[in-house]
Amino acid sequence: MSPPLVIKNGTVVNDDGMFKADVLVKNGIIVEISPNIIPLPDMELIDASDRLVIPGGIDPHTHMQMPYMGEVTKDDFLKGTEAAVAGGTTMIIDFCCPDHRNGESLMAGYARWRSWADPKVCCDYGLSVAITMWRPETADQMAVITSPEFGVNSFKFYMAYEGTLMVKDDEMYRAMQECAKLRALARVHAENGAVIKEKEKDLLAKGVTGPEGHTQSRPEEIEAEATNRACVLAAQANCPVYIVHVMTKGAAAAISHHRSLGSIVFGEPIAAGLALDGSHYYDEDWLHAARYVMSPPLSRDPTTPELLMKLLASGELHLTGTDNCTYDCRQKSLGKGNFTKIPNGINGVEDRMSVVWEKGVHSGHIDPMRYVAITSSTAAKIFNIYPKKGRIAVGSDADIVIFNPNAYRIISKDTHHHVS
Amino acid sequence: MSPPLVIKNGTVVNDDGMFKADVLVKNGIIVEISPNIIPLPDMELIDASDRLVIPGGIDPHTHMQMPYMGEVTKDDFLKGTEAAVAGGTTMIIDFCCPDHRNGESLMAGYARWRSWADPKVCCDYGLSVAITMWRPETADQMAVITSPEFGVNSFKFYMAYEGTLMVKDDEMYRAMQECAKLRALARVHAENGAVIKEKEKDLLAKGVTGPEGHTQSRPEEIEAEATNRACVLAAQANCPVYIVHVMTKGAAAAISHHRSLGSIVFGEPIAAGLALDGSHYYDEDWLHAARYVMSPPLSRDPTTPELLMKLLASGELHLTGTDNCTYDCRQKSLGKGNFTKIPNGINGVEDRMSVVWEKGVHSGHIDPMRYVAITSSTAAKIFNIYPKKGRIAVGSDADIVIFNPNAYRIISKDTHHHVS
Amino acid sequence: MSPPLVIKNGTVVNDDGMFKADVLVKNGIIVEISPNIIPLPDMELIDASDRLVIPGGIDPHTHMQMPYMGEVTKDDFLKGTEAAVAGGTTMIIDFCCPDHRNGESLMAGYARWRSWADPKVCCDYGLSVAITMWRPETADQMAVITSPEFGVNSFKFYMAYEGTLMVKDDEMYRAMQECAKLRALARVHAENGAVIKEKEKDLLAKGVTGPEGHTQSRPEEIEAEATNRACVLAAQANCPVYIVHVMTKGAAAAISHHRSLGSIVFGEPIAAGLALDGSHYYDEDWLHAARYVMSPPLSRDPTTPELLMKLLASGELHLTGTDNCTYDCRQKSLGKGNFTKIPNGINGVEDRMSVVWEKGVHSGHIDPMRYVAITSSTAAKIFNIYPKKGRIAVGSDADIVIFNPNAYRIISKDTHHHVS
Amino acid sequence: MSPPLVIKNGTVVNDDGMFKADVLVKNGIIVEISPNIIPLPDMELIDASDRLVIPGGIDPHTHMQMPYMGEVTKDDFLKGTEAAVAGGTTMIIDFCCPDHRNGESLMAGYARWRSWADPKVCCDYGLSVAITMWRPETADQMAVITSPEFGVNSFKFYMAYEGTLMVKDDEMYRAMQECAKLRALARVHAENGAVIKEKEKDLLAKGVTGPEGHTQSRPEEIEAEATNRACVLAAQANCPVYIVHVMTKGAAAAISHHRSLGSIVFGEPIAAGLALDGSHYYDEDWLHAARYVMSPPLSRDPTTPELLMKLLASGELHLTGTDNCTYDCRQKSLGKGNFTKIPNGINGVEDRMSVVWEKGVHSGHIDPMRYVAITSSTAAKIFNIYPKKGRIAVGSDADIVIFNPNAYRIISKDTHHHVS
Repeated sequence: MSPPLVIKNGTVVNDDGMFKADVLVKNGIIVEISPNIIPLPDMELIDASDRLVIPGGIDPHTHMQMPYMGEVTKDDFLKGTEAAVAGGTTMIIDFCCPDHRNGESLMAGYARWRSWADPKVCCDYGLSVAITMWRPETADQMAVITSPEFGVNSFKFYMAYEGTLMVKDDEMYRAMQECAKLRALARVHAENGAVIKEKEKDLLAKGVTGPEGHTQSRPEEIEAEATNRACVLAAQANCPVYIVHVMTKGAAAAISHHRSLGSIVFGEPIAAGLALDGSHYYDEDWLHAARYVMSPPLSRDPTTPELLMKLLASGELHLTGTDNCTYDCRQKSLGKGNFTKIPNGINGVEDRMSVVWEKGVHSGHIDPMRYVAITSSTAAKIFNIYPKKGRIAVGSDADIVIFNPNAYRIISKDTHHHVS
Repeated sequence: MSPPLVIKNGTVVNDDGMFKADVLVKNGIIVEISPNIIPLPDMELIDASDRLVIPGGIDPHTHMQMPYMGEVTKDDFLKGTEAAVAGGTTMIIDFCCPDHRNGESLMAGYARWRSWADPKVCCDYGLSVAITMWRPETADQMAVITSPEFGVNSFKFYMAYEGTLMVKDDEMYRAMQECAKLRALARVHAENGAVIKEKEKDLLAKGVTGPEGHTQSRPEEIEAEATNRACVLAAQANCPVYIVHVMTKGAAAAISHHRSLGSIVFGEPIAAGLALDGSHYYDEDWLHAARYVMSPPLSRDPTTPELLMKLLASGELHLTGTDNCTYDCRQKSLGKGNFTKIPNGINGVEDRMSVVWEKGVHSGHIDPMRYVAITSSTAAKIFNIYPKKGRIAVGSDADIVIFNPNAYRIISKDTHHHVS
Repeated sequence: MSPPLVIKNGTVVNDDGMFKADVLVKNGIIVEISPNIIPLPDMELIDASDRLVIPGGIDPHTHMQMPYMGEVTKDDFLKGTEAAVAGGTTMIIDFCCPDHRNGESLMAGYARWRSWADPKVCCDYGLSVAITMWRPETADQMAVITSPEFGVNSFKFYMAYEGTLMVKDDEMYRAMQECAKLRALARVHAENGAVIKEKEKDLLAKGVTGPEGHTQSRPEEIEAEATNRACVLAAQANCPVYIVHVMTKGAAAAISHHRSLGSIVFGEPIAAGLALDGSHYYDEDWLHAARYVMSPPLSRDPTTPELLMKLLASGELHLTGTDNCTYDCRQKSLGKGNFTKIPNGINGVEDRMSVVWEKGVHSGHIDPMRYVAITSSTAAKIFNIYPKKGRIAVGSDADIVIFNPNAYRIISKDTHHHVS
Repeated sequence: MSPPLVIKNGTVVNDDGMFKADVLVKNGIIVEISPNIIPLPDMELIDASDRLVIPGGIDPHTHMQMPYMGEVTKDDFLKGTEAAVAGGTTMIIDFCCPDHRNGESLMAGYARWRSWADPKVCCDYGLSVAITMWRPETADQMAVITSPEFGVNSFKFYMAYEGTLMVKDDEMYRAMQECAKLRALARVHAENGAVIKEKEKDLLAKGVTGPEGHTQSRPEEIEAEATNRACVLAAQANCPVYIVHVMTKGAAAAISHHRSLGSIVFGEPIAAGLALDGSHYYDEDWLHAARYVMSPPLSRDPTTPELLMKLLASGELHLTGTDNCTYDCRQKSLGKGNFTKIPNGINGVEDRMSVVWEKGVHSGHIDPMRYVAITSSTAAKIFNIYPKKGRIAVGSDADIVIFNPNAYRIISKDTHHHVS
């Protein structure tokens, strides 16, 4: 058991206030926050002068060690969470994707994921469970997996990836009705998978095989369409809905539209989408371009990233994730000659906290309190782990980041903690 | 061969102008329009003083003699077109629905419809051909049916009626791409059929079996959703799109939204939607309520009809149809105890011209020129039969209506020309 | 000095959590919140079983004892705050309207208001200062009044009431630039005063003199227009903006629109607008109708109140006020024969907490945490008095309401605490 | 009197159809259109093989010989109309701006303009009359000027240029009510002049004196704001409204918004806005930048021109003008050191027809019929001179352009017909 810890002279930042205070931690719990805590001899001491003392980041969207189409993402639950912690993120919410189409129960899938993650993780984690098909037993299994024994409180739906993960409208609507009953959250990957499949075929037939085909097969309009559809189905099912990886202005506009009708909709941009645009898909270096392949793709409109940050500021978008889902060069190269075979995914879990600060606070769009909200507190509230997580408060977990808002560093594969 | 005809002293109204003139017709063609035509002794003479001389109405949306689910609509091509002509409509565009799912070719279906219609119709007619499934041979058949031999220039897609008429997104997108190639028009029935199917099951399970279940299973939001989706898919396929029976504010707003992005979208409200609202679904008389069962249902917002007319005025909606699709009491009664079995459809082909005048011109929203546009000329332009149809001009077909704008009549089953 | 107070067995509700806990208060400050506080003999004890323990309501919008056009509102700072406290509101933010047009300085006006309020108020209060004209000295006075000596942090602008309170666009824009510099908030009454003035003249000229003229002279569209304009001017001035009394769907839509562009906009519906519609303006009883005269008027669309509540739920609107501004029968009757002379205003400060609960929580739109947010915490955050106000937390002011969510009462002039 | 003229072998294009036909003109009137007209010996003959025979362009927005702030635009009514005709425009609608503020009557101003134009014009022209202030006599003068004696049928309102041309909201609303009574059209220059004035002062105070100050003082958002306001005021006055020079996406969106509410709104982009963007304002060459100074300024968003053309295609915008208003180098240079003194205006009347073809038809957004609509027919319809103008039809004026859709030319000051 580690000794008590005093963090002195820092500025505590929560989503609803910031103030100078010292923080005392015992046994992993914050036990005191007050202006001047005198450290006892047995206590560890950290001087946080000129530093912010903020709740550890919560990344609500990662795919560590995920098997998909014969490959497994490179960041396993060890390396992935090491990277997270190195970057100031102390909890992740990952996705468990049971092979429900082939009859695996949600509980069995969940157990599989736990067996991978539990021995390895070096930070807290949660799991959203993907529903990839509606089967007669699905409703019952949803009830079981949300019971206290399992404690899952959110489900994931894919409107893309036809043939593997994608659900049809009636399946999603049916499952959303169950979510409403169980008071679970519906999280949605919003792209029109049917159109994508056709566009992929057309592009390949025309000889478009490179990474530019990825962005061409997934035009922004179909992300907006699916986002709208998800919001409508959720409203019909009386179910709050959470749109993961909002990448485009059109998707964000669909969310705003439904919020303006009074629907409860949450929108999650990701670090990559706040920092990058889709010009990379046309890079002459195949591998460079392939590295940016993710779905939905980065917007080709260079003004999108700043608008997404402004919407996080105005409250039309709500929290930031990463969709951390890493593949190495060998894996990316499986798509040489056929862009549809390039594994989809990028990293981000390590650098999200820095990127959001840079693009949000440093750029003048938000203040440090809103920064804490969109990197930690709102996630904690949505996933019902607040104020244990997401707040610097007496009684909360000591998931604390000492943040230097004035430091400068270069993001590099040579220094990051992801699997290289 | 009838003698030449002179229409004297009337006011000719086209979509772009109105003026006093006499009209001379020979052999079914307008051969002269001028201020003062002196009738020769062999000519028939009509005095059109205080009357408008307008192009015959074109109803772009009827289902005469349509077989569906074991029943056939009561207005056959004789009685239906008699009713049309009685009301001032001189051309209809009906729908041919080949049993494509079971392998019937578009051409064979088309021949079937022609065999029913040709011997009976008493006015001109055209056919839009429904694509209800995408089969390997569909593209080729679309090319054949749009060739001069057949002359079809529009296709119809149903996003509702799962299991019978409904196409999936990939099918519709694929077919819309063919439409774009063939320069044919895509016409869409926009409702989310997947959600409807689930809602129907839920309502029946809860014991909601009456006509009110019809409107409850088809909330307005899912018409708006499907309209948006149709517009997105059409834009992705580079295909103009025509939304049939726009019934709600949300669907109209979706059309406006896509027009404001620069997409070519046409919207067709129908006579029923311009005159009625959905309060009838809650009528205590089962049969009364059942008679209003059509899809999408009438809007339950009483301010919808006037807004639809205002959008016809401002140009956000474009032309008016009826979806004339009549069932008698016996047929409607098949749905006693199960609203999903009530045949969907109402009449309208006879009264459309009067209803649009009443709600449009008489109410002050539009002038007579716009009236001609939305009852006739725009349909003629869209379906490429203009100016042969849809215009009072030299060389045009003498499809002429002598319209008394000041007459008053009561719509009644005792006086109309539909099958009773 | 009152003895310490223990509130036992209640459910503490803040905007971000709710939990069972006891609360200990000393000297007006909350000093302990914990599961089981043992009352000492000298302590006062309140049993809050089955009760919610919530932060006292903050009404951000009242006009107590306001002189306007020769009359003074009947609720003075004593009776008005008594009514507030009786209803569970422990702080109000009132408006100070210096006679700036005639040269009164903001500071002198402020002193005047303090002289009226300080001797009378029985709860905390703050003042927003109205800028009714731009004068050479205005910028300097804004700087002084926001200095610590005065501590004002928000200004009010009227886009209506031409000739008395209304500012022109250039004046408002100029002042908003000052707000941005001073980090003060701009609060706006959004109606197009120029159009209202003309409509009033037209209506009176046509012989429309009754209270229905009030709503006819202020159509909903001009509230939406002014709201849009206020948002644009604020965005141009880089100034957050707070729209007071959002009464209509159009105004709410304008707010959503600007939020979806990334602007920081807050919207405040009021209790009356959440509970009532504008049908009252056509009541046959003149006095009944006149009592509802306020600006902007209640919406004549009966579905508006519920939508406003849904927008408070979805986060598109943010907090609730009342615009408490009471006139008695004699005063209202000054407008007999000329609706423009009916003093504008209704009450609400006493019943807001109940009305918002009824229409929000009881109706199923929001949970108790959101209720606390929209009645108290968000106001405290916006006006920078959080967490001293607006939160049940150690160190916060003991502005505590013991709320019975299951009680039932009738709102009546016979039982309320306003001036009768 | 010129001899009869036969135009042979061309393709006649109207807004509602195109077909091969010969055209016979006598005494300036089209007297025959038929497949094969045999020219008589006394007839002039033009071979229009491979050419389009289209209605002469109508430019609804020019300022020839306009006095403003001590200068007069260089294109007088002779040179300006010579340039028009050289480019295929056979009618212009210019603006008469009576010095109403100083008491000049609308009729006197009109007479002044007629005295300048009548002796010089070499094509047809019309005049819209600007109302720059509301005076007691204004309503009566509006009635007189729209009487058959004068024949004016549209008025112009400036929401910018405070102190010279700008009207206040109440003035514009009052005048729009008169327009509605007189069935005249309200045309609006939509920018928020009050904000512009303040921004100009601020920029000059900061030392921004170059042409970039012009675009910085007139941000796109204030064009959108004023467009929205104009639409609201017009709707309140029951008056159709025509927004001149729609330059930005936001203004176009405001128009679409009001059309989707059922309002009658027309939008006019101009040639410059369809072809250019606002990057020129930052050109290092002062004079280059100054030449582009016009109001509202060109959009700095490079995707705006194409969207405006797409909206002309979809029908959300309606016709094209130029705002031809030329100043020479000496005049532009009056603004050296103070961008607010750079005379506002560019040319366009000569090249509009080519630019719209290039950006519209050649780019694939519209067909030749829509081209005729947006360059001629719609203007003729709106200003009530159709089908005398704007149509190739028997009885119409022979304002005919023989258009070579495949020619290529360079726009140059060395070859154009404007004043150099």
